[in-house]
Amino acid sequence: MGKDQPADVDQQARRLSRRALLTGGAVGAGLGALLGGAGGVAGGYALAERDRASEPGYDPATTPALNPAAEGPGFGGEALPCHGAHQAGITTVPATHVRHIAYTLRPETDRDAIARMFRILTGDIEALTAGVAPLADPEPELAERPARLTITVGVGPGLVDRVDRAKRPAWLAPLPAFTLDKLGGGFDGGDLLITVQADDQLPVAHAARMLHRDLDRFGEVAWVQQGFRQARGAEAAGATMRNLMGQVDGTVNPKPEDADFDPLIWIDTADGQPWLAGGSAFVLRRIRMELDTWDRVDRPGREQTIGRTLSDGAALSDPKGGEHTPADFAAKNALGLPIISSAAHIRRATSTDPNERIVRRAVNYDDGHEAGLLFGCFQRDPLTQFVPIQQRLDEADLLNEWVTHTGSAVFAILPGFRSGETLGAGLTA
Amino acid sequence: MGKDQPADVDQQARRLSRRALLTGGAVGAGLGALLGGAGGVAGGYALAERDRASEPGYDPATTPALNPAAEGPGFGGEALPCHGAHQAGITTVPATHVRHIAYTLRPETDRDAIARMFRILTGDIEALTAGVAPLADPEPELAERPARLTITVGVGPGLVDRVDRAKRPAWLAPLPAFTLDKLGGGFDGGDLLITVQADDQLPVAHAARMLHRDLDRFGEVAWVQQGFRQARGAEAAGATMRNLMGQVDGTVNPKPEDADFDPLIWIDTADGQPWLAGGSAFVLRRIRMELDTWDRVDRPGREQTIGRTLSDGAALSDPKGGEHTPADFAAKNALGLPIISSAAHIRRATSTDPNERIVRRAVNYDDGHEAGLLFGCFQRDPLTQFVPIQQRLDEADLLNEWVTHTGSAVFAILPGFRSGETLGAGLTA
Repeated sequence: MGKDQPADVDQQARRLSRRALLTGGAVGAGLGALLGGAGGVAGGYALAERDRASEPGYDPATTPALNPAAEGPGFGGEALPCHGAHQAGITTVPATHVRHIAYTLRPETDRDAIARMFRILTGDIEALTAGVAPLADPEPELAERPARLTITVGVGPGLVDRVDRAKRPAWLAPLPAFTLDKLGGGFDGGDLLITVQADDQLPVAHAARMLHRDLDRFGEVAWVQQGFRQARGAEAAGATMRNLMGQVDGTVNPKPEDADFDPLIWIDTADGQPWLAGGSAFVLRRIRMELDTWDRVDRPGREQTIGRTLSDGAALSDPKGGEHTPADFAAKNALGLPIISSAAHIRRATSTDPNERIVRRAVNYDDGHEAGLLFGCFQRDPLTQFVPIQQRLDEADLLNEWVTHTGSAVFAILPGFRSGETLGAGLTA
Repeated sequence: MGKDQPADVDQQARRLSRRALLTGGAVGAGLGALLGGAGGVAGGYALAERDRASEPGYDPATTPALNPAAEGPGFGGEALPCHGAHQAGITTVPATHVRHIAYTLRPETDRDAIARMFRILTGDIEALTAGVAPLADPEPELAERPARLTITVGVGPGLVDRVDRAKRPAWLAPLPAFTLDKLGGGFDGGDLLITVQADDQLPVAHAARMLHRDLDRFGEVAWVQQGFRQARGAEAAGATMRNLMGQVDGTVNPKPEDADFDPLIWIDTADGQPWLAGGSAFVLRRIRMELDTWDRVDRPGREQTIGRTLSDGAALSDPKGGEHTPADFAAKNALGLPIISSAAHIRRATSTDPNERIVRRAVNYDDGHEAGLLFGCFQRDPLTQFVPIQQRLDEADLLNEWVTHTGSAVFAILPGFRSGETLGAGLTA
């Protein structure tokens, strides 16, 4: 289909507009308003409108306006911009459905092929996240309602080495071994990570398939991990997720509006790899829950294990204080013993060093046979952020009796890209 | 936990109420209003209220009202009644998420054990669908927001034979072999079917786990199949599902408001097995889609294959007529050829006999490696309804090049039950 040829912006714009015209369109007034008209896909829309006039048979008097499909009721038509200093899907409001797909590059996928792959991915991401079918998408109707689809791309150690060994940061490697890990179950590592998220499983499935159609020639699927959180609309907006152990999960998490957020998560030029400035480091751990034995623990025992109440996630130091009152690890009971146990999960996970924090983004998984957490976290350097936290947990965390880490992977999340730019261009340049 | 002892209604009511009190409760004003107070769970709620006064330490002046948790924003708190002439989850508005779980009975699970199992299931279903944690549920918070949870129970040939061979209808057996079937992949048959549906995956996962905790002693999991349709809130209410081939799927489907609906779907006493009156026959077919090759078919080719437009599902005989204009199979084009091909899917699936219809309830599946349709259908007798349809499709359906049936199971869906009754009591009596 000629898609492994370099595609410039105009080509991409034509691709968008042509598809929009052929299918009755998908990007329109509603979507344009959502995107605010500030660059990004809105730019693509403007191009599409302009380009439309050159389509054979175009008659402004009789051709319907673009995009009836993306309007209509329901949130299916909502689109998020894919352009910016950082990729979408990292600090975006967490989606209901998440699919992580790792690829192993084929032996023949060299630096030039990787550059081609990034160009193709760029066009696919721009189209799919905007609700526009990519070139030769045979099911444009499945693309039209993205339901806040995001596609986030990361690269593993093997991919960077193929481009230039000197461009690989020290942390982009398998994590140091933890005593309790039971890896090797087929969910470790990977050369390329594609994370597809949306509030509806249909656009996730369709986007993954369209991306696979293009990625198939460059690599093969190493593993797929699918997760979920409570459905959009089921809970109050902004409610913290519950995991399958019944715990409120993710209460203490740096937020983009925090003053010290950026240096925790975003790699900058001072970090020694300019191609990664604006990117991040992503660690994905597959954590199996031993729910059968966990179910035998009584409620006080569970709350002691975590250090929080089950009902609303309040720290045990102030059980009436609600989810967001900070834990007081110094608090003692009448016997002079710590209220939050020395081996409680939240105590072991907390560092006195404010730089030793991570931005968590976990989802539940349950394939009907095994359940647990797909624990993903973003940071600037896993060796100084995730690793010391996990070492403390590995050493002594009451929760360890009921959780097992069965998969581990580290990826460099590529910096964001603007309209006209190519994802990952800094790496392959 | 003594749960394999017979439990009478009062015991169940106490279980509900006690749990509600211990956990801050889950059934309340909002839920009560939803259920309309007309029998069903509302009855359970009334019992719970009454029973509350006998709880140790109960003081109406200081004990908070039941069920703050089930209120609050979002649809998570919505509950559907489980009681009625028919089980819930059959004609209920289709849920976003569906999990079918089949069990193989353990060798020691005899008629008496099956009766015990049904009693335990009855209590679990009453509690979970109402958003009340079942007895000794260690994660009551996961039960509190059922998001329209339904749990539907069916029995396979093996289970009925264990009770009484004479009670098995002729159709409750593996389907006759179809030429193109590729069964044997681990998704065939089963002694017991539990279908869990909700608009949120979290209550589905939790309910399946709580049910498994109780079913584990009676059987082991034979297979699990999970599927989805477009998310609740993503589309206009009542929109027909799209499958992963991009087709509008399920347009022609008998509806409960149709005058001839009941005799198509519900077994009655005249059918020779009084224990099944009010029940139905469920056929589940796992249909793998060959999407890689399907993607190479052009749009007209795809539309000819089905006999409908891809854009909105209109029959090709009247492509501007919209989804619900009936197909005119006699319509011819200018050359005198049928507009809807003689082997188009919708033509092959349509019978001239109005009794030869089924009530479809299909969902998509996509585990990241394989995708397709979990095609479920209800009817009074599969041998006279599903089988002749599938024989015509098996014989000549253009779609066969891109779909393969890889799993097949038939279950007798138990009749509904009312408050105080036990699911399946007619079988084991």
